[in-house]
Amino acid sequence: MSFEESLSFTPKFDANGLVTVVTIDSASGQVLMVAHMNHQALAKTIETGQAWYWSRSRSKLWRKGESSGHTQSVVEMLVDCDQDAVLMTVKQEGPACHTNRKSCFYRRINLQADDKTSLQFV
Amino acid sequence: MSFEESLSFTPKFDANGLVTVVTIDSASGQVLMVAHMNHQALAKTIETGQAWYWSRSRSKLWRKGESSGHTQSVVEMLVDCDQDAVLMTVKQEGPACHTNRKSCFYRRINLQADDKTSLQFV
Repeated sequence: MSFEESLSFTPKFDANGLVTVVTIDSASGQVLMVAHMNHQALAKTIETGQAWYWSRSRSKLWRKGESSGHTQSVVEMLVDCDQDAVLMTVKQEGPACHTNRKSCFYRRINLQADDKTSLQFV
Repeated sequence: MSFEESLSFTPKFDANGLVTVVTIDSASGQVLMVAHMNHQALAKTIETGQAWYWSRSRSKLWRKGESSGHTQSVVEMLVDCDQDAVLMTVKQEGPACHTNRKSCFYRRINLQADDKTSLQFV
């Protein structure tokens, strides 16, 4: 059986030991954020039902909302064909973004502008 | 003004020169795939309105659908707070996944099982 048809969860961590996680809001289906999990964050997320990530900037394991209170309860976790990305649906408490916006994706690339390096707030 | 409020698109490429891209179907809002763009792929995508990615496994720039015909026409591109991830909405021609499924996320981690390394097809 090919890897793509396997029913065994064998995540492919990258050179830094990370998989990419896309987090979606269970109520709206909106993409809230993109982050990373190492082996331990993934195990703790699955074990506790709360989202744990690996912070690349702080080189540290963190439970989402541990300081802000903006926790994420896991509803569903899907894995992609080559098992290097996880799509996680969560019940989000408050805003997901540290800027206090619901989603981290709040700026649009202005594709119509002559200068395509300008952004617009969504 | 803080980086998070900036209206200038200045993507933060990682150590390998890549940003993460989450691609969404314009018709359904479904997450189709997670992939990567280097500077050139991002520039070509913005310039042509067709999705170009950097293949990490093949170390090669590719236009989505160049061999399969399953192209992606860009509808919208959002960038996240720290500008290291792009959320791209596309008009997807045919299936997005190389397994001929609509989305690459077709297996669910069985969180209810004793053995949490088992997957179920969605």
